[in-house]
Amino acid sequence: MEISDRLLKQIEFIKEIDKIKYIQRKTKLFHSDRHENDAEHSWHLAVMALTLLEYADESIDLLKVVKMVLIHDIVEIDAGDTFIYDLERNHTNTDLERLAAGRIFGILPKDQADELITLWEEFESGQTEEAKFARAMDRLEPLLQNSSNNGGTWNEPGVSYEKVFAKKSVIKDGSTALWAYAEKLIDAGVAQGILKKQ
Amino acid sequence: MEISDRLLKQIEFIKEIDKIKYIQRKTKLFHSDRHENDAEHSWHLAVMALTLLEYADESIDLLKVVKMVLIHDIVEIDAGDTFIYDLERNHTNTDLERLAAGRIFGILPKDQADELITLWEEFESGQTEEAKFARAMDRLEPLLQNSSNNGGTWNEPGVSYEKVFAKKSVIKDGSTALWAYAEKLIDAGVAQGILKKQ
Repeated sequence: MEISDRLLKQIEFIKEIDKIKYIQRKTKLFHSDRHENDAEHSWHLAVMALTLLEYADESIDLLKVVKMVLIHDIVEIDAGDTFIYDLERNHTNTDLERLAAGRIFGILPKDQADELITLWEEFESGQTEEAKFARAMDRLEPLLQNSSNNGGTWNEPGVSYEKVFAKKSVIKDGSTALWAYAEKLIDAGVAQGILKKQ
Repeated sequence: MEISDRLLKQIEFIKEIDKIKYIQRKTKLFHSDRHENDAEHSWHLAVMALTLLEYADESIDLLKVVKMVLIHDIVEIDAGDTFIYDLERNHTNTDLERLAAGRIFGILPKDQADELITLWEEFESGQTEEAKFARAMDRLEPLLQNSSNNGGTWNEPGVSYEKVFAKKSVIKDGSTALWAYAEKLIDAGVAQGILKKQ
């Protein structure tokens, strides 16, 4: 059987995205001093989405959410991870990330490249119900991690209760119930002195 | 808002499965000397399933396949990773893995625990079309890795062309087209001298 060009492109993409395993995030694993990488993070968000689906405020397409969280950080292979509380760089929608999406998803056959770029843009825009829930997962995981790690990245310069609250309130857009839980964790962080008010 | 016991169990599960990130596989990342861990591996299989769906021999439920590959190695948190060419231990369905499934998925509310245990058993049995395709992904990824790594784990004691061929033929059960590609990779390994006949 002849191997099609289409399959070879797909295999090339599968090899290329292996590089996401080297992209280190600011946050660390639970009760740990070891940084998480983007592959581990994306896996965790996908399992969280399966587990927490019932808390979505609207009826959503779970497969679409899972696809989104699985591919949302692939652009960081070229663009790198930007710390969410970075004082200088904007976390989302940088030109670098758009270029990366075009290059990396563009390794795939055109129909698949178009699908994944559209899906990534939908996640970044955060307007659809699926994107809102996917983004809620993306904000909830590091909140759980920081809570378990004595504050974790909350101890970085420039991070305060007010900024954490503002960034985490994205969770509210996807799930009222998970936001109620997130608020309690943030408040507990302040009470424990691991998250400081400005 | 009161936080339900149900949500607390789900959060406990989400924290527990973080440990999969420490479970190291025998295989290494592409063109790399760094071992892959189970979270990275599961993430990669999920994206492979999205990308290669069109090669499934039968019409399959993609969400089910993705769920399977995302959770198939969670039991290794307790049972550890067994090398597929291990000369003494049986790779699949050990008593230890069944106990692990009960303990770890059992952290979840009963309806979810039951669903994931059933899904894991379906993957392990490999009888349904979804399980066959999921298992094809699980065998294809390390084949791609070993091909890129000068043989990789093919250099371990007791590993031969005949054993690799037998283990990899599971790919055929899920996808004729991917098996044709896999056969070419195995043959190329022999031709390059990185996979030895017995």
